[in-house]
Amino acid sequence: MTDRAAPHFQEQLEALHTRLLEMGGLAEERVRAAVDGLVRRDHDAIDRVIRGDEPLNRFHIEIDDRAFHLLALFQPVATDLRSIVAASKINTDLERVGDLAVNIAEAAKRYVRHPPVKKLIDIPRMADLAQSMLRDALDAYVKGDTTLAQSVLDRDDELDSLKIQVFRELLTYMLQDPSTIEPSLDLVLVSRHLERIGDHATNIAEDVIFMVSARDVRHPATGGLTET
Amino acid sequence: MTDRAAPHFQEQLEALHTRLLEMGGLAEERVRAAVDGLVRRDHDAIDRVIRGDEPLNRFHIEIDDRAFHLLALFQPVATDLRSIVAASKINTDLERVGDLAVNIAEAAKRYVRHPPVKKLIDIPRMADLAQSMLRDALDAYVKGDTTLAQSVLDRDDELDSLKIQVFRELLTYMLQDPSTIEPSLDLVLVSRHLERIGDHATNIAEDVIFMVSARDVRHPATGGLTET
Repeated sequence: MTDRAAPHFQEQLEALHTRLLEMGGLAEERVRAAVDGLVRRDHDAIDRVIRGDEPLNRFHIEIDDRAFHLLALFQPVATDLRSIVAASKINTDLERVGDLAVNIAEAAKRYVRHPPVKKLIDIPRMADLAQSMLRDALDAYVKGDTTLAQSVLDRDDELDSLKIQVFRELLTYMLQDPSTIEPSLDLVLVSRHLERIGDHATNIAEDVIFMVSARDVRHPATGGLTET
Repeated sequence: MTDRAAPHFQEQLEALHTRLLEMGGLAEERVRAAVDGLVRRDHDAIDRVIRGDEPLNRFHIEIDDRAFHLLALFQPVATDLRSIVAASKINTDLERVGDLAVNIAEAAKRYVRHPPVKKLIDIPRMADLAQSMLRDALDAYVKGDTTLAQSVLDRDDELDSLKIQVFRELLTYMLQDPSTIEPSLDLVLVSRHLERIGDHATNIAEDVIFMVSARDVRHPATGGLTET
């Protein structure tokens, strides 16, 4: 990288970070809207989530282009290179989060055709938790904050416990009353989609820790080749 | 890139491709073993899949290291750069396929604690289809074969239809006999895990088409910024 290119590179890297944060905000908003539509049984809100995936897909393509051009034009090394490779992975995670928001809305659309199985309490809790994990993982990426990234990893168990709790409770409803089977299955799916959103937040947090410390925490049992 | 470095680069790029193919073969084998364990109700085979994720995790870390070092040392451009970025994404997809094989085995482990709900026909068909999609997507990557990649995309609808068929059939069992609810839910999960393996094959096929033609097929409705 030439000295003349360097400030231009930093500007473009910051622009990439800004776009990733915007994309993350939008992905999070779509998850919130899908779960909110489910809880309030709001058909229009649910349909808006199902139809509204295009802005996020545009982000996905634009961010991939930006990352690719930064690699091709500036050929960065070390931390800058890791940061861009991480951006490209995070971009993929956020696009999947958007897909999962659509999946939640699709399950919600089926669910609201039936009478409510129960008052929804744990599913909104799961959604809040998954959203906070996503927000903090992106924040940790932009700040290079491994402590915050680690706190995201720590919250994944809580999300998993809630998912198991949701499943057990719904199973008792299904066993008592077969007419609840179909709508209950959609709630089970919603809880699994939310769990997967937490998994994407976890992926991002792991990438942050790798990016900052070049330490691979993705497979603790294996021990990274790059582990120090 | 200097002329002296060029052959060394090509060798290392080929080594990266070889490792990705090996990793793909292993991921596919683990999916096959998980579904086979489910069909034959073989507890030991199922446990081997659940415990056996480490070799795939080692591949994941090694391939990420290789891709990273190729980017850092040779600073490739154009097709070579796209090929390495694609390798890094495919690596992530294959690692997730390995995780899904574990998820299938975990559902199988729960399933075999109950009497069989039905003879399993569509689930092994889904597994065969998902495996062939994965194999062909990787083959398309190494050969840069967009026709083969497109054939992978075409097969995704078939997988989706099978998933819906599995769900409808199991729903009738659950409605008729509540004692089948719990094991049926695990079969529904297995069919969704297999669908997601097909999604990963689709991701890889899309990356191949992008890599070869710099044409973005990931969001047809949006129209890629890079579309020609």
